[in-house]
Amino acid sequence: MNSNNQYRMENDPLGNIMVPNSAYYGSQTQRAVENFQISGIRLPRSFIKAQGIIKASAATVNVELAKLSPDMGQAIIQAAEEVIEGQWDAHFVVDIYQAGAGTSQNMNANEVIANRATEIMGGLQRIHPNDHVNMSQSTNDTFPSALNIAAVEMINKQLLPALTTLEQTFSHKADQFMPILKSGRTHLHDAVPIRLGQEFSGFTETISAVRRRLEERLDALYEIGLGGNAIGTKINLQPEYIPKVIQEVCTRTNQPFRQPTNIFAFMQNTSEPIRCMLTLKELAVHLIKITSDLRLLSSGPRTGLSEITLPSVQPGSTIMPGKVNPAILEMTHMVCCQVIGYETAIATAGIASQLEINVMMPMIAHTFLHSIDILSNAIQTLEVRCIRGIQANQEQCQKWMKESLSLVTGLSSKVGYDMASQIGMQADIENKSLKEILREKGLLTDEMLKAIDPKGMVE
Amino acid sequence: MNSNNQYRMENDPLGNIMVPNSAYYGSQTQRAVENFQISGIRLPRSFIKAQGIIKASAATVNVELAKLSPDMGQAIIQAAEEVIEGQWDAHFVVDIYQAGAGTSQNMNANEVIANRATEIMGGLQRIHPNDHVNMSQSTNDTFPSALNIAAVEMINKQLLPALTTLEQTFSHKADQFMPILKSGRTHLHDAVPIRLGQEFSGFTETISAVRRRLEERLDALYEIGLGGNAIGTKINLQPEYIPKVIQEVCTRTNQPFRQPTNIFAFMQNTSEPIRCMLTLKELAVHLIKITSDLRLLSSGPRTGLSEITLPSVQPGSTIMPGKVNPAILEMTHMVCCQVIGYETAIATAGIASQLEINVMMPMIAHTFLHSIDILSNAIQTLEVRCIRGIQANQEQCQKWMKESLSLVTGLSSKVGYDMASQIGMQADIENKSLKEILREKGLLTDEMLKAIDPKGMVE
Amino acid sequence: MNSNNQYRMENDPLGNIMVPNSAYYGSQTQRAVENFQISGIRLPRSFIKAQGIIKASAATVNVELAKLSPDMGQAIIQAAEEVIEGQWDAHFVVDIYQAGAGTSQNMNANEVIANRATEIMGGLQRIHPNDHVNMSQSTNDTFPSALNIAAVEMINKQLLPALTTLEQTFSHKADQFMPILKSGRTHLHDAVPIRLGQEFSGFTETISAVRRRLEERLDALYEIGLGGNAIGTKINLQPEYIPKVIQEVCTRTNQPFRQPTNIFAFMQNTSEPIRCMLTLKELAVHLIKITSDLRLLSSGPRTGLSEITLPSVQPGSTIMPGKVNPAILEMTHMVCCQVIGYETAIATAGIASQLEINVMMPMIAHTFLHSIDILSNAIQTLEVRCIRGIQANQEQCQKWMKESLSLVTGLSSKVGYDMASQIGMQADIENKSLKEILREKGLLTDEMLKAIDPKGMVE
Amino acid sequence: MNSNNQYRMENDPLGNIMVPNSAYYGSQTQRAVENFQISGIRLPRSFIKAQGIIKASAATVNVELAKLSPDMGQAIIQAAEEVIEGQWDAHFVVDIYQAGAGTSQNMNANEVIANRATEIMGGLQRIHPNDHVNMSQSTNDTFPSALNIAAVEMINKQLLPALTTLEQTFSHKADQFMPILKSGRTHLHDAVPIRLGQEFSGFTETISAVRRRLEERLDALYEIGLGGNAIGTKINLQPEYIPKVIQEVCTRTNQPFRQPTNIFAFMQNTSEPIRCMLTLKELAVHLIKITSDLRLLSSGPRTGLSEITLPSVQPGSTIMPGKVNPAILEMTHMVCCQVIGYETAIATAGIASQLEINVMMPMIAHTFLHSIDILSNAIQTLEVRCIRGIQANQEQCQKWMKESLSLVTGLSSKVGYDMASQIGMQADIENKSLKEILREKGLLTDEMLKAIDPKGMVE
Repeated sequence: MNSNNQYRMENDPLGNIMVPNSAYYGSQTQRAVENFQISGIRLPRSFIKAQGIIKASAATVNVELAKLSPDMGQAIIQAAEEVIEGQWDAHFVVDIYQAGAGTSQNMNANEVIANRATEIMGGLQRIHPNDHVNMSQSTNDTFPSALNIAAVEMINKQLLPALTTLEQTFSHKADQFMPILKSGRTHLHDAVPIRLGQEFSGFTETISAVRRRLEERLDALYEIGLGGNAIGTKINLQPEYIPKVIQEVCTRTNQPFRQPTNIFAFMQNTSEPIRCMLTLKELAVHLIKITSDLRLLSSGPRTGLSEITLPSVQPGSTIMPGKVNPAILEMTHMVCCQVIGYETAIATAGIASQLEINVMMPMIAHTFLHSIDILSNAIQTLEVRCIRGIQANQEQCQKWMKESLSLVTGLSSKVGYDMASQIGMQADIENKSLKEILREKGLLTDEMLKAIDPKGMVE
Repeated sequence: MNSNNQYRMENDPLGNIMVPNSAYYGSQTQRAVENFQISGIRLPRSFIKAQGIIKASAATVNVELAKLSPDMGQAIIQAAEEVIEGQWDAHFVVDIYQAGAGTSQNMNANEVIANRATEIMGGLQRIHPNDHVNMSQSTNDTFPSALNIAAVEMINKQLLPALTTLEQTFSHKADQFMPILKSGRTHLHDAVPIRLGQEFSGFTETISAVRRRLEERLDALYEIGLGGNAIGTKINLQPEYIPKVIQEVCTRTNQPFRQPTNIFAFMQNTSEPIRCMLTLKELAVHLIKITSDLRLLSSGPRTGLSEITLPSVQPGSTIMPGKVNPAILEMTHMVCCQVIGYETAIATAGIASQLEINVMMPMIAHTFLHSIDILSNAIQTLEVRCIRGIQANQEQCQKWMKESLSLVTGLSSKVGYDMASQIGMQADIENKSLKEILREKGLLTDEMLKAIDPKGMVE
Repeated sequence: MNSNNQYRMENDPLGNIMVPNSAYYGSQTQRAVENFQISGIRLPRSFIKAQGIIKASAATVNVELAKLSPDMGQAIIQAAEEVIEGQWDAHFVVDIYQAGAGTSQNMNANEVIANRATEIMGGLQRIHPNDHVNMSQSTNDTFPSALNIAAVEMINKQLLPALTTLEQTFSHKADQFMPILKSGRTHLHDAVPIRLGQEFSGFTETISAVRRRLEERLDALYEIGLGGNAIGTKINLQPEYIPKVIQEVCTRTNQPFRQPTNIFAFMQNTSEPIRCMLTLKELAVHLIKITSDLRLLSSGPRTGLSEITLPSVQPGSTIMPGKVNPAILEMTHMVCCQVIGYETAIATAGIASQLEINVMMPMIAHTFLHSIDILSNAIQTLEVRCIRGIQANQEQCQKWMKESLSLVTGLSSKVGYDMASQIGMQADIENKSLKEILREKGLLTDEMLKAIDPKGMVE
Repeated sequence: MNSNNQYRMENDPLGNIMVPNSAYYGSQTQRAVENFQISGIRLPRSFIKAQGIIKASAATVNVELAKLSPDMGQAIIQAAEEVIEGQWDAHFVVDIYQAGAGTSQNMNANEVIANRATEIMGGLQRIHPNDHVNMSQSTNDTFPSALNIAAVEMINKQLLPALTTLEQTFSHKADQFMPILKSGRTHLHDAVPIRLGQEFSGFTETISAVRRRLEERLDALYEIGLGGNAIGTKINLQPEYIPKVIQEVCTRTNQPFRQPTNIFAFMQNTSEPIRCMLTLKELAVHLIKITSDLRLLSSGPRTGLSEITLPSVQPGSTIMPGKVNPAILEMTHMVCCQVIGYETAIATAGIASQLEINVMMPMIAHTFLHSIDILSNAIQTLEVRCIRGIQANQEQCQKWMKESLSLVTGLSSKVGYDMASQIGMQADIENKSLKEILREKGLLTDEMLKAIDPKGMVE
């Protein structure tokens, strides 16, 4: 693959084409490179690795079933393992906006492995990308299977750990802030007292619930349709192939992949990425809520609520000196907006599925995996650089709480809703304290004072 | 409530206001009616019923805990049961676009029940909407609880049965159509053969998978936060209230409602409606895919694929006589577009949650419940008026299958991918049959003919 | 139409069907009623009116071109004018989720007018819904034309006036609040001073810009494709029909409707409603921003920013007495969330268009017109019940401004960004005023004091 | 910047930090690099170029207004011009998910230019990133202005030319295909005849209309808020600065930029990118419709409509030899799904704007510019590799047309809608031709035959 001339001539059903001499890929990849100069973005490491796993697994089973010679099989397996290791990533060159089923992506793997395997065999025998490397496979069964394998890895290794740590940190903060009394706020208006730790316990459970849901979602990603090949009808296939190839994938990944309930549904829909993406959207919606709350609670330092202080991570303004902004929270919010958009993209691609397969697959693959990636990174950063270092401003919390007109709620059971309302509204309009109004009305008894004492309202 | 004068004067913390004499609601509802003349849409029967269930349950427990006199409690319970029965639906008059937490909606229930209960007691004692009917409650704990109760009922009684029947009918059709061989199509292009029944088995599993997911989702809707009242801090509440009131709701609904894992998370987020709505979106995405496929397969009768025939339900054109269109499929598609939009609306409302509560609740409630309703109706109609009556056009299926150039796939294992490609492309370009090309190439043997026989490709 | 028996037998290409005797509609409408029991929602008054206008206009031209007898024409015109007036609204009974092109809706109009016209003629001659009322027309040209006519009316009469008034009120408030100095906030953190009136001038221009855009958008809605009939090929049509029928519509509406640039594009796409809906989304996005700001600025009264006070419109809580919430702003926010969802619904329907027409039309029509309606009502309510009565809390504005650490920005040009940063951060950390820090650093000169005087920073 | 040690110590208001010795950026950029390890994506060339243009323009005016020494000014201008040329792109290293206003991005430009300018001056004088390079500016006025400048360039140079060419090619194809008669299809069912060229004329006008709209949209992007600095109040600014700096930008870009109508609206909203993104969504919706139609019309070659043939661009399947798929159309569809998702992301970010500025800016900037880029590339590819080479299959078109049952429409004016319906439905049910049915009914006259002749139905 590294002679002196810059290009070599290759040939495929559509005719001749020049391929860079240094490239391990071949004619079909080259056509895709020329056809699709769109974004410059390629599918990620995790996906290429999953492609390698599938190619190696298929070759192993094809040898076992005597469809492929052991020599060729061994060469293909070695080449595929190099792909798994990341050795040939630079030769995976097809844009994510490519042919709809991911045929070009699959051919890229087939060609790189075929050429590398031929090289491994010393060029004695030509390994064919379709006849040998792609044997027993189609793009239509391997592409969505590779996607599931990649997603499982990224969710298990990146997203779930990040979420778990975030959940633990929120839980720790909830404990730490449980003694801090503050004013609740509903509609952004004075409400009855609450503990800062109670607010954080809400955040904890919100993250925890999404994490549990994501773990449930994960289960269905373990269904991979290897062996369905072109459209689920398992053409040119021995029946033993399917359980064996999936077993091989399990062994290579150490994960419990299994056959789908119905192979046709698997191929028609890309269901699990669509479904799992919805859970990422749910996560994004809740993260926006939580980080927006934290921005509100930390607003100030002098012109806002200032109930909590975030760790300073960088100067906040190029013109206003000394300003420090909630940059990590804003970054997280932006990532979540993007993920919400990505879910729309994937659902829009999902409804475009037609008959036997969905031809929006490469874009779904990129968008889903990229969403997992940026969410994981954002959450990890959020935990380390923000949540972990949040401090409560106890005094400020106290100050707001004591002023809250909503303390009048304590009077309801004493004087009824109507009278309590009158007291509250009069205090507001005349800009007086509840105590002053009680005095004016001749209601200032110990019992009344106790009734509007915030401490009595939280436990 | 039915004297001669048309209006009566009422009074609340904001002053006097005229209320129609025939109305069981009072001043706060009246203010809401005047404030919110937006859509003319009101929350549905299921929601009002759930409000009644909560009011009756709370009164029962308040009596039990000696917070409310048995007389008053009994009157409130009776009035609330009339609300449950639907007797006072015409008096629930607040627009769905109202104050953000649903305060007006809750006051509407409080006022109707208070006035009716006062009437029941012969006017001897005035039942107060806040002090008595709303006792131990707030809008913020009862509104989202009522939403969950209503949703559980509608999902159990409408959506799940409709989905189950659809699934069964698809399954029945899959069995019926299993003998029918046809051409598969990927990218809308000729693919290898498949059984029509296999396609329908894919539809069956797709619906089945969403149904199973929906059943899982349902579980979390059973968490209701009654007793959290204003912001989760259970103000003015005896601890026994919460388990007792939830037990009451369980008894009245015969459903296993339970306390939420964390009351603050429950109140901050409206999580379950958001999450459940995502599953409705998933259902909508898949229904669009399936019904679009059915429209494609039934296209014609003379200028399309015409592999299946749908039942005729109505004339299809005002200008083109004799035309019959896939009206039921189109209706379903439209409902699904709307539901996808509704999910966007709910998620957009979800991210607007701030601090202790979400103030987009009434719109979330309407949108979620309405989505369940129209999806249920559409699916039931789809099953009865379309899927059930689909017929296969076996001859037409055969005709397409025999012509498919993708039969050349059978040659791959004999002559290799490259030669098979050549044969296929030549047939296409020269507009000949595969057999003709084989003959021209001197490859027309029995083995080859067998290799391109469609029957051998689907087992 | 009002004999004694409850039902009459009618007949159409699909066979016999019973129709309520009191109904002016006929067999095809009846089939649609039975087929589509989905939402209970029907197309609005403005749409039915537009259908009437088209039917009357077509009949006028058909008589003029001698395709229709003057007697029949006159009866049809009279019946159509009654439809325009709203006399037969109760007989327009088809669910919005119906056959995809709106055929049932068109037949509903055709049948009501045919039966009423037959009645007008004393039953001497039967007016046929297709042959006479629908003459020269199809659903495919009249339905989207009716939609544009209805939208133009609602935008001109409801939405634009509401927007214009809101813009004027914001402008008036901007003037009124121009003397009020306050602290700016970026990232919800202390920023340099600004005038409250400047903030409101931003709101004014934001609304103004969308209004101007909407006026531009309106122009394309004036393109109506009457005469294209089934698919744009103007089948069975005299060439004079098209200009004449559009002229008739112009006369009846007093609006400058015109032919579309290309009739096929008009029929393929529903472009203008899709496009115009995007502008409604833009409006919704901006209204959420503005109303969220107003909720933030009015937060309190004791535990928030409290820089402005909103008019009280109703009690805010069923449990917290005296609470008054920003109910009108929340209602507006909810309407905007819904409109954002509706835009998604329409775009999702837009991409489902296939070949000659879009078969998601009735849902697009409902969703678009309903969006105009609820946005108009929300904006009008917003203006009347909220914006108009906003009051500034000058003292509170002053208080925040004087405390803002961002006043240190004034020092930048004196001591450089780095030193100014140090001063600002030290003040924050040590919880002191800028003045104190300046004193400690020996920098407290008149020049310095002047540099951090807020008044010098706004004009 | 290129000494031997690998890192140098730098200092900013938050303390010391190590910066790579080879880096032209400084401490604040370094902090951002460490804070934001999220996506690895950076803002594009066009944006960095626009930042350079603004920095150069500001320095020019600052010298002119004697706020900056000519030496320093000259060094800054030279360094900024090197940034414009792309010489320092590798030193723009901040992730797109960064601090919300883009402060890190602005500091990246400030630091690179300051360090390079210091170098240009031979290190005689230290140019300060804030005091000198950022003089008269803030992130909040320069970031959105840079975005508009970049967007204007990309729309003018990439998107509009691509659209214009596509429109011309569709127009050319429409002319070429005008003689080709075919069957129309509505609801995917037989409709009256149409010319293939008429269908393509619809596509032409659809693209043309969006292009015209985009040109209108472009106008508002010319409003740039330079000089508003922190929040629109033009702090520390001489009044002449604003017109002068905008004039400088105009000179450097040769484009007619101008001041915004209201500077506060400009800063509060990011309106124009939001609005312009809506037009990109509109384009995406229409492109999905058109490319889906083309996929349908080219379906086959043997099992679909096959009315047109697309150019072959690459083999279509790894398992089915000879298959060629509509890869370019699918790629375009995927790009459009993504753009629709991106619009959701931007709108979701748009509603998060708060008070004086929007802190979702860098993500909006990336998403908007990336959308322009991939749409432009997709459209250009679509035109060159697909539309330009489409061929009509006249025979196949004829065949479908002659079989269409919708030809019965021609009989309506002869025998009425009801009889014509009967004939059409009978032909369908009995699987006969219209002619046969006419014969059976004794209606087979020359007049009737002429009435169902397709040629008479299209002009």
